[in-house]
Amino acid sequence: MENKLGEGSMVARPISNIVFIIAMQTEALPLVNKFELTEDPNSLFPKNVPWVRYNGKYKDLNVNIVCPGKDAILGVDSVGTVSAALLTYASIQALKPDLIINAGTAGAFKAKGASIGDVYLASDVAFHDRRIPIPVFDLYGVGLRQACCTPNVIKALNLKVGKLSTGDSLDMCPLDEASIMKNDAVIKDMEGAAVAYVADLLKVSVIFLKAVTDIVDGDKPTAEEFLQNLAAVTAALDEAATKVVDFINGKCLSEL
Amino acid sequence: MENKLGEGSMVARPISNIVFIIAMQTEALPLVNKFELTEDPNSLFPKNVPWVRYNGKYKDLNVNIVCPGKDAILGVDSVGTVSAALLTYASIQALKPDLIINAGTAGAFKAKGASIGDVYLASDVAFHDRRIPIPVFDLYGVGLRQACCTPNVIKALNLKVGKLSTGDSLDMCPLDEASIMKNDAVIKDMEGAAVAYVADLLKVSVIFLKAVTDIVDGDKPTAEEFLQNLAAVTAALDEAATKVVDFINGKCLSEL
Repeated sequence: MENKLGEGSMVARPISNIVFIIAMQTEALPLVNKFELTEDPNSLFPKNVPWVRYNGKYKDLNVNIVCPGKDAILGVDSVGTVSAALLTYASIQALKPDLIINAGTAGAFKAKGASIGDVYLASDVAFHDRRIPIPVFDLYGVGLRQACCTPNVIKALNLKVGKLSTGDSLDMCPLDEASIMKNDAVIKDMEGAAVAYVADLLKVSVIFLKAVTDIVDGDKPTAEEFLQNLAAVTAALDEAATKVVDFINGKCLSEL
Repeated sequence: MENKLGEGSMVARPISNIVFIIAMQTEALPLVNKFELTEDPNSLFPKNVPWVRYNGKYKDLNVNIVCPGKDAILGVDSVGTVSAALLTYASIQALKPDLIINAGTAGAFKAKGASIGDVYLASDVAFHDRRIPIPVFDLYGVGLRQACCTPNVIKALNLKVGKLSTGDSLDMCPLDEASIMKNDAVIKDMEGAAVAYVADLLKVSVIFLKAVTDIVDGDKPTAEEFLQNLAAVTAALDEAATKVVDFINGKCLSEL
């Protein structure tokens, strides 16, 4: 039932155009500075949407970082699967990337070997909060997909590898926990599986780079731990993302 | 914090172009036949997506029914918030409707006066499975929005009115239940609040027409009751939808 993402775009030419999907601007801005990107004043996106695009040339790559931006009424980052799916869709339509990198922070399980600040490359992604107990619909709800196969990235950069589970809540209720265990996930986020769904729909390769801000099976409250570690862990995420982009530069998808 | 949907499009001319967003093809097909719509063979949507559009003229209206279609691998209807949001976004971009009607089946609470076969027009919509316990993010997660104000439709057609709560699971865990109660909802679906989010983002008016297939606080298992009642209740939904469209014909948004 697994679906290898982006096989349609496995062309034998160097990757030239990449799109980072990053849910929170706090996570994105250090990378925007690192790659010396500038905000696109002529938005490619419809009027009124809060989506933001930063763009620039980095080495041989056209690098885009897109964020869902701040909710118009509430002023907070538009996190979660609905916004991430819409932004991924609109970005693919407008930018036709060779590769999508969904980067961000995540919770993780110490019982599976994770620590604060670890950066994971996800091997698989699935949802843990779409329970539809009707045969086949149940599998649709879980929405298991594989990330683009990147054995050379993993070997060269010594990244941790693990399964990612996605849901729209920052906390974890017992049913979510059971689904996360069933998904065999080490890391837990709020966007990955939605980005994977859209990338699969439109046949674009995608990888997931997730840095651990909070230990889900630890003793600290998730929201508190997340906010405490956000800035420091974002630095680790940016370092890993830069290494990944440096590695990607000049290579084809099949060489990752 | 409530957001009145679609105020930007409150133009003083008769509604001419409507888009039904319907998650399941079983729910859509009787209406497709009723309005004598035909499937658009030159899809307005990107290659590979399973989204289906039926279109035709009914009285003075250009009527579109769009469905997220069958999952390419699993063959089941692409239900839920992610698909509904994407389809709503793409349909607004392609079709520039005056009004969106999200029609479908729903669960409902007998404690709030609902019975199988009732058809509700939702006054408000919100999510019940996006728990983000950080100030302001919590409100973003709930995503409360008002439907387009339609006092004349309600009066003329004698429809039940109630609040709608949306989540990606067919079942209801205790935390979902608590959120649904907090949302003060009578009806529970898997798409409404996502459709509302996108309609609000792109400033298009939207109404929600939901027919009750299962009693959430009853003694029958939801999945079984849903499947048992789907066909019969779809007939009630179609009758109500036809009456709504007949009422809309020739009127401005402000006359609804």
